Amino acid sequence: VGEFELINTFFTRGSKGDDVVLGIGDDCAIVRPPAGRDLVMSIDTLVEGVHFPHHTEPLKIGMRVMCTCLSDLAAMGATPHWFTLALTLLHAESAWLSEFSEGLFQIANQFQCSLIGGDTTKGPLTISVQVHGSVAPGTALKRGGGKPGDIIYVTGDLGDGAAALAALSNKLTVNPSAYAYLMKRFFAPTPRIQEGQFLSRKATAAIDISDGLIADLGKLCSASGLGAMVDVARLPISQHWRDQVNQEQALDWALNGGDDYQLCFTLPPTLVEPINQAVHKGQIRATPIGKLVPHSGVQLFHSGQPYQVTDHGYDHFG
Amino acid sequence: VGEFELINTFFTRGSKGDDVVLGIGDDCAIVRPPAGRDLVMSIDTLVEGVHFPHHTEPLKIGMRVMCTCLSDLAAMGATPHWFTLALTLLHAESAWLSEFSEGLFQIANQFQCSLIGGDTTKGPLTISVQVHGSVAPGTALKRGGGKPGDIIYVTGDLGDGAAALAALSNKLTVNPSAYAYLMKRFFAPTPRIQEGQFLSRKATAAIDISDGLIADLGKLCSASGLGAMVDVARLPISQHWRDQVNQEQALDWALNGGDDYQLCFTLPPTLVEPINQAVHKGQIRATPIGKLVPHSGVQLFHSGQPYQVTDHGYDHFG
Repeated sequence: VGEFELINTFFTRGSKGDDVVLGIGDDCAIVRPPAGRDLVMSIDTLVEGVHFPHHTEPLKIGMRVMCTCLSDLAAMGATPHWFTLALTLLHAESAWLSEFSEGLFQIANQFQCSLIGGDTTKGPLTISVQVHGSVAPGTALKRGGGKPGDIIYVTGDLGDGAAALAALSNKLTVNPSAYAYLMKRFFAPTPRIQEGQFLSRKATAAIDISDGLIADLGKLCSASGLGAMVDVARLPISQHWRDQVNQEQALDWALNGGDDYQLCFTLPPTLVEPINQAVHKGQIRATPIGKLVPHSGVQLFHSGQPYQVTDHGYDHFG
Repeated sequence: VGEFELINTFFTRGSKGDDVVLGIGDDCAIVRPPAGRDLVMSIDTLVEGVHFPHHTEPLKIGMRVMCTCLSDLAAMGATPHWFTLALTLLHAESAWLSEFSEGLFQIANQFQCSLIGGDTTKGPLTISVQVHGSVAPGTALKRGGGKPGDIIYVTGDLGDGAAALAALSNKLTVNPSAYAYLMKRFFAPTPRIQEGQFLSRKATAAIDISDGLIADLGKLCSASGLGAMVDVARLPISQHWRDQVNQEQALDWALNGGDDYQLCFTLPPTLVEPINQAVHKGQIRATPIGKLVPHSGVQLFHSGQPYQVTDHGYDHFG
């Protein structure tokens, strides 16, 4: 099977909007950007053995790569439009490609994100996806807009990614329903697209949590020229696994575990009450965990006392 | 050195236009697309040992990846704007990164293409670049617009890529100036951006020659629902090496060698005279090599007789 047949067989499905002038099959794709909006784009690479375990089912790889890439659009409050796929693999196996593309499109279709182009090459399994979305000019959420006194929130629960990895390597034992929950959280972490769009024009700063709360909140602080105080007792941790480990372990995973793909965002104090109401109405799930402060660094507290951790998140080549 | 420091150290140079709202350093890049134009994009991956030899100097890798990616924009007649870089490498070595980025920006700056974002990951050396350009709506050159009777042209010379690979593996011996020419053609094949823009609203179809003339002209024919007759005696072959090999070898490289990154395009007979004048004035270098015909397939002729070749171009997994 030749390179181009590969692409045609497995990757020319999924709905395409009128904004796709020319999709897969030429030297380039052509799209018509929505008039008067800024384009928002991000490219991410997943390498076998680094970002997902060897021998992971291709369906899960497909879902995970799409979820994690869309998470970057979520962090900007953007509306997804299109994606491209650069797929490097050792062997062109139909079964693998069929399942991988199934996982990819399951997530992409859910967020109306169309595949418009790509490249397939021979080599060690490496997957790069670039996602493209749009925002009204000036409304993108950025890391650098936080102000002293802003309240720090996170969407959903923290530590699920690290707990899932522990469960996968038999270092954490949970019941079957909790295991299923963790696998879904690891292989298909819902990109917080809706939450990001809801927070547009409200949040002063935002980032998605891929490398761990301390690491990613640290980047938000650094971009905003500020520091943070976090009350670790407030960290939202799932009931599915928190009672299976001691509190120190649970907090370590919530603080330092990567792969959560929740949003961490900051709100001015005046918006706390409106957000509380939105949370109450079920419009968004978000938990206040601390506040931005003038000095630098992320400081942790528990019951009013400084809280010590050793790990400092995940960094390639770190 | 952490992932983000890597990016900041080596990849935050090169000029940025007003169209870049937010560059490297956040979850996404933000760009303002030129009003009223369509966006054109392409992603390409280069794998060490597949698309360039092991131990290639990083400066050359950087130049080559940028040239080959921009060639896809050239084939559409697009104006380059921005690119993203997904870089997977085993070790983060400053010297390697410094030279690689130098090569990348040498070419990117030459074509006013700004780096707006990327991702660095640990793994076997794999480089994906996505380029973004624009065209006036409806003016992009495509593979599928050829008409029976259209004249087939190629820009520049053919076979340089294959001759360069032969020289690199000591299968072709040439003098130092010819060697330098071939190395430049292989590691920095000028993307035919100017030529592509010149051909916009003139050529009926176009493709860039990356997999060999027969393979790529075959794709143009297939997309146009047509076939081609090519006179191999007309194929432009560089004086730098053509007398060092027999005619059959020279023609094989010109027909089947990949990596030339010239444009193959078709013109209606009415535009042949204007193009001849443009060639005469030095506005474009282009050679007529045959014509499109109603039946399918690429047929080769030499002195009026059918010409046989065995190879059929380069195809990953093929």
